[in-house]
Amino acid sequence: MSSYIVGVIGGGEDVLQENYELAYRLGGLIAKEGWVLLNGGRPAGIMESSARGAKESGGLTVGVLPGRSSSEASAYIDIAIITGMGSARNNINVLSSDVIIALPGKAGTISEIALALKNGKKVLLLNFDPGSIFAEYRDTGLLQSAGSPEEAISIIKAGMGSCD
Amino acid sequence: MSSYIVGVIGGGEDVLQENYELAYRLGGLIAKEGWVLLNGGRPAGIMESSARGAKESGGLTVGVLPGRSSSEASAYIDIAIITGMGSARNNINVLSSDVIIALPGKAGTISEIALALKNGKKVLLLNFDPGSIFAEYRDTGLLQSAGSPEEAISIIKAGMGSCD
Amino acid sequence: MSSYIVGVIGGGEDVLQENYELAYRLGGLIAKEGWVLLNGGRPAGIMESSARGAKESGGLTVGVLPGRSSSEASAYIDIAIITGMGSARNNINVLSSDVIIALPGKAGTISEIALALKNGKKVLLLNFDPGSIFAEYRDTGLLQSAGSPEEAISIIKAGMGSCD
Amino acid sequence: MSSYIVGVIGGGEDVLQENYELAYRLGGLIAKEGWVLLNGGRPAGIMESSARGAKESGGLTVGVLPGRSSSEASAYIDIAIITGMGSARNNINVLSSDVIIALPGKAGTISEIALALKNGKKVLLLNFDPGSIFAEYRDTGLLQSAGSPEEAISIIKAGMGSCD
Repeated sequence: MSSYIVGVIGGGEDVLQENYELAYRLGGLIAKEGWVLLNGGRPAGIMESSARGAKESGGLTVGVLPGRSSSEASAYIDIAIITGMGSARNNINVLSSDVIIALPGKAGTISEIALALKNGKKVLLLNFDPGSIFAEYRDTGLLQSAGSPEEAISIIKAGMGSCD
Repeated sequence: MSSYIVGVIGGGEDVLQENYELAYRLGGLIAKEGWVLLNGGRPAGIMESSARGAKESGGLTVGVLPGRSSSEASAYIDIAIITGMGSARNNINVLSSDVIIALPGKAGTISEIALALKNGKKVLLLNFDPGSIFAEYRDTGLLQSAGSPEEAISIIKAGMGSCD
Repeated sequence: MSSYIVGVIGGGEDVLQENYELAYRLGGLIAKEGWVLLNGGRPAGIMESSARGAKESGGLTVGVLPGRSSSEASAYIDIAIITGMGSARNNINVLSSDVIIALPGKAGTISEIALALKNGKKVLLLNFDPGSIFAEYRDTGLLQSAGSPEEAISIIKAGMGSCD
Repeated sequence: MSSYIVGVIGGGEDVLQENYELAYRLGGLIAKEGWVLLNGGRPAGIMESSARGAKESGGLTVGVLPGRSSSEASAYIDIAIITGMGSARNNINVLSSDVIIALPGKAGTISEIALALKNGKKVLLLNFDPGSIFAEYRDTGLLQSAGSPEEAISIIKAGMGSCD
């Protein structure tokens, strides 16, 4: 059976220091659970920081890249999937993840949250308030907020015992 | 030179009557300008209504479909582009449009607004308030609101004379 | 109902004069039938020549482009579909075409023939002998050769009356 | 730095016993080199057999799936990349592989060989003769034949020392 994959999304640029740190800590926790971390693969922002956190805790990292060359991958990516599809690869990120954790980001991150919800994937927001726009997905429980990386992991583990 | 293409996006399901009517009127206005209307192509919601408006005013309509068969296209679509890519086709919709007009919708529509902004495409909101999430794109003018279909057309025509 | 679309594929570079001429003539014949011509959209080779033939006979042309900008489209393309997906767009070309006509080309063209056959689309070869590789698809009739553009049109028209 | 990835392609159906065995042996050899094996991920044909060979020699396997669910993956796939893109995912397979080894297959396999060559990726044919169609790529050395799985591995290792 294939590995359990946690997608971590968030900004590539203009990332606050506290979010780098949350992403790093989150990556480490994912690795310690034995889960695979998947992200957008570039050497920037939440992608790089979460991958580094996972690698430094002995985890396995997958980067799904928008460009055409594996040379664009972060040094903390083990498996570089080269799509050559630009932002259309965002849909692959969410389909390939069993669950998504979203840190703050701009339009790229928001597109991934939206594509995840559209495809029925659970999204956990970490230190990120997108306002009212996804309210109906909060009502159904598909979208939730986690107060910390540790709580995000707990929510995922609680959900793995259930049927959804 | 290829035709000027206006992408019209919005919900496929649970669409208010007033938004059907706005989409229909908008489709007609796009056709009267001699522009091509592009949408997601399915026989539902804002897609169907905007395409019908364009066709009944003599316009040309392009539908970029998520599935694998042209039989999934609305009867008001002239050119069915069959992607077989699911929601990854949303990125093609925005890249192929010179400008996007967004009526209310859920996660699919929001993903297209986000992908458009990510790709630097201008988005005009029509009767749709996504809250604060895209605030920074309002500041740069990439995201604007139009008070009516007529105003959306005026904004587009004003922009065509400029350099951006 | 959406338009009948004929995909024309073939080399972008190193194209023999006789194949430019066949592509031009073929484009004109497709236009005269009232069919839409679809190709890869670039200003080169069989793409440009077939689109020019269609336009100069009053037809409608669709180009499905690999890059991210409509400025990459041939001047003879009416509707530029911008995929930003590189060669992955070849699958969209074949899915969107009701039938494919293939002139000589290299790996890109061969990939489109193969993707068409994989997806169960009929392919007519025009002045192109790919050797034995697709023999089994000849046996089932999915792959055929046409002796001229006129014969290709006749084969398509004969097939439209049948049930397959 | 991300792992070295060898793509193994070949038929999903109607596969001869000798090719199952070659694929299994090849998968094992790839694993023993410490390389990652990437394929189309489905539980069938060359895909399943090569992945099983790699897993039973302690390797890591990546499957890039055409459908929308990880439940479609072979039991021998560690990392399931879910594209939801059908055969358009074939381009991702070749872009993500540092080198491709092709066993016999039909149109799907041929499309991947063609896409690989189009993208400038080296392809090694194993027990597979596609006829004359790719002759020019043989002349440049981009396409080669290997007489056995062992020889395929040797060719790859020889190439890793060079600059191309």
